[in-house]
Amino acid sequence: KIVSLLKRYFLKTDDLLKNMNILITAGPTREKVDPVRYFSNYSSGKMGYAIAEEAAKLGANVTLVTGPTAISHPDFVEIIEVESAEEMLQAVLRKYDQADVVIKSAAVADYRPKYPLDKKMKKETEQLEVKMEKTTDILKTLGELKNDQLLVGFAAETNEVENYALGKLKKKNLDMIVANNVLTEGAGFGTDTNIVTIYDKYNEKIELPLMTKNEVASKLLLHVNKLLREKRK
Amino acid sequence: KIVSLLKRYFLKTDDLLKNMNILITAGPTREKVDPVRYFSNYSSGKMGYAIAEEAAKLGANVTLVTGPTAISHPDFVEIIEVESAEEMLQAVLRKYDQADVVIKSAAVADYRPKYPLDKKMKKETEQLEVKMEKTTDILKTLGELKNDQLLVGFAAETNEVENYALGKLKKKNLDMIVANNVLTEGAGFGTDTNIVTIYDKYNEKIELPLMTKNEVASKLLLHVNKLLREKRK
Repeated sequence: KIVSLLKRYFLKTDDLLKNMNILITAGPTREKVDPVRYFSNYSSGKMGYAIAEEAAKLGANVTLVTGPTAISHPDFVEIIEVESAEEMLQAVLRKYDQADVVIKSAAVADYRPKYPLDKKMKKETEQLEVKMEKTTDILKTLGELKNDQLLVGFAAETNEVENYALGKLKKKNLDMIVANNVLTEGAGFGTDTNIVTIYDKYNEKIELPLMTKNEVASKLLLHVNKLLREKRK
Repeated sequence: KIVSLLKRYFLKTDDLLKNMNILITAGPTREKVDPVRYFSNYSSGKMGYAIAEEAAKLGANVTLVTGPTAISHPDFVEIIEVESAEEMLQAVLRKYDQADVVIKSAAVADYRPKYPLDKKMKKETEQLEVKMEKTTDILKTLGELKNDQLLVGFAAETNEVENYALGKLKKKNLDMIVANNVLTEGAGFGTDTNIVTIYDKYNEKIELPLMTKNEVASKLLLHVNKLLREKRK
């Protein structure tokens, strides 16, 4: 306990986000085909975990809703582990009212198998068609339910990055979006670095060079803090 | 170097499998839908890594062909990292001729998306059908190409475990198969324990109780050693 408090004391570099409730989602989700198989995506969760870590260092009360990842849990962060898009939605909705800031860095599955099986599917046929249905769009749902929360999304794209990012910012009623091209070296999945551009609803655009995900997290939280201050004016 | 040799000296409890070339596969494979999404399964790789570790302790020359896992690499084992079923097939075929024993614990995807996309699929439609095609059956291929290798398979099932296991043993020309019901508590994916039954081509059946995956690995390698000795007679 004492060690833990001391650690926190020495970790903290600033109180910029003191008493702020920050809800962060991270990682992929997994959507079951049967008890053995699933659909997922290449998100490692590193970006979201870095944001959680940096936000805790800035004094925020951080809740991290995380899909399956191989990363160890950051200190001073409340962790809620989920697997599917539906579980992530439910976990986020339960925490949404008390949140001042929501940063949705998870790569939630857009589609899930429509008819998941209870038993392991046997490989009898040469071909197979898996019928998929859309999952609930968590970010869109949060945008619609927004009261006073500052809502931050991510756009991990492979083409027309700016177009998609700006479209998403508007359509989903976000305050800010962080965009990257996952095909760019150093900005892809699983790496410890990222190259992002931040867009906000006041038409500000901030292009960041290659940096570590923790550095990206810091920059992003500085901009969050700026938007929070603008809101209060 | 010296530390490493000393470590090996103290690790090794036996020379049971000295000079044996053992090829082990572990983990799931991932089959791309597009640059962001993939199809996979719940294999953690723990069973295969445990076998690699125990085989190295018994003095074998171990090659571990592994799909994506969160496990750190065991000592004294040659590691070949792959992602897809096709990559795993190619890696295994390159090592097959020199292998005395092949233990195929990987959960290779049976199906892969037939038309993987170069760009991230956009979620425009409410429903979606993913066309899948069969991957090459690695174990069956190895069974067909078998010269003098001792071939060990796994059957992770959810129902009719013994039926499927014995069918697989025959159909794929295996010497031994290790079967478990992944729905049983303590025998599922990601756990550190397993409950398995070993069947061999001489109609021997060994039911093991709940034990750690390293203990299962030891028992399994003891039976491998027994079969090797029987072959030499």
